[in-house]
Amino acid sequence: MAEVEGKIRLFVEAPLGPDATVALDPAQAHYLFAVMRLGQGDRVAIFNGRDGEWLAEVASVGKRIGTLAVVAAGQPQRVPPDVWLIFAPIKKARTDFIVEKAAELGAARIQPVFTRFTNSERLRPERLRAHAIEAAEQCGETYVADVAEPVKLAALLDGWDPARRLMFCDEGRTARPAAEALADAPRGPWAILIGPEGGFAPEEVARLRAMPWVLPVTLGPRVLRADTAVCAALTIWQATLGDWPAEGGG
Amino acid sequence: MAEVEGKIRLFVEAPLGPDATVALDPAQAHYLFAVMRLGQGDRVAIFNGRDGEWLAEVASVGKRIGTLAVVAAGQPQRVPPDVWLIFAPIKKARTDFIVEKAAELGAARIQPVFTRFTNSERLRPERLRAHAIEAAEQCGETYVADVAEPVKLAALLDGWDPARRLMFCDEGRTARPAAEALADAPRGPWAILIGPEGGFAPEEVARLRAMPWVLPVTLGPRVLRADTAVCAALTIWQATLGDWPAEGGG
Repeated sequence: MAEVEGKIRLFVEAPLGPDATVALDPAQAHYLFAVMRLGQGDRVAIFNGRDGEWLAEVASVGKRIGTLAVVAAGQPQRVPPDVWLIFAPIKKARTDFIVEKAAELGAARIQPVFTRFTNSERLRPERLRAHAIEAAEQCGETYVADVAEPVKLAALLDGWDPARRLMFCDEGRTARPAAEALADAPRGPWAILIGPEGGFAPEEVARLRAMPWVLPVTLGPRVLRADTAVCAALTIWQATLGDWPAEGGG
Repeated sequence: MAEVEGKIRLFVEAPLGPDATVALDPAQAHYLFAVMRLGQGDRVAIFNGRDGEWLAEVASVGKRIGTLAVVAAGQPQRVPPDVWLIFAPIKKARTDFIVEKAAELGAARIQPVFTRFTNSERLRPERLRAHAIEAAEQCGETYVADVAEPVKLAALLDGWDPARRLMFCDEGRTARPAAEALADAPRGPWAILIGPEGGFAPEEVARLRAMPWVLPVTLGPRVLRADTAVCAALTIWQATLGDWPAEGGG
């Protein structure tokens, strides 16, 4: 739940349209009525990730219960640029941060992977999903990044669709700089792979480099933490092939 | 204090050269001997931000005391790309994060500013400096971003050197996309200005837009948090005018 430029934006599960009414869950009702002090007739923006943004009015207020009624259309539904972020989970706070940043930077899908050198702490996808929803509320987006169940890197590569290119952020520093490599690369479906703090195992690097749809890139002369690399790689992708250029794209 | 690719890197204040010995402070000695379990003859990389990186050997070990002796030259001293990050402090954890990320992404100087809508919590520059040092240790860099004392934005602009261009990350969304605007911009000294969560006041925006050395840019269609905007703006600057391209620059 987030306030963007003075406007509260709330993600809801219910279908939305011109005459929709939405029953709030207890946490949402508490946030709107107890924390933000909204009352009957006050307005919020709501979205469900599928039906665009709508302006809604508080129609009924209760203790941890209430309803919103749609009163006007807001932003139309946007289609996310087709880029996935694939990352190896690290410490809990930095994993949360990676999900928040990937969602804010407009990834369509966030895929945790276990690599050979991943310290496989238990991941809670529902917790990560909550971060992705909060980021969508906060950044004014109409879609929510899809947080996938964690998988092993080898299994993910076994089932890879060759039509989806993979930007592989290689710590070996022998690849081309990311911005330059992406400027020459085709549009279409993409994914970005960021390794664990311990780097990839040599056999993982060899497999990745041998796949024709993999584009190895470097992110400058410094060793970036995984969370920094996520921000940098998504920024360069969005600025080059995604929806940051004025002319659109992605 | 950080371990990069299995090598411990330690920032020290002392002058460094072929025959230097360095007295460890209690925290450094505790880290090397108690935490990392180093003993006499073990090696670490040390740097002081001025004299390049050196390999040093543990020469004496005590309880919260000890010395290192330089045994070989490491990386030569690098000159940072001449880019400053100017940001309005936000919540403590996110301010710490901004300093860490700005240092990792190679800013030469980090300048906190108070703008009209900055919630001016007390800042502790020595704490921010510790984050910048840790980031330099971690990312393998030989220089440490200089963390300046906080100043008011108006005072900073009053004394601005017109030779230093300022990339102004404008939430108004009427400016050009950052990557496109920087591709046409000259090299030389730069600064990046990221506003507070509440945005800039209209008179601040008007003043910035009227200054000939200011380049307003946008960072995509989503509302980025200040810490995300810092990562994105520095990434685009480094990839365009900084030291990320293979051919060097900055």
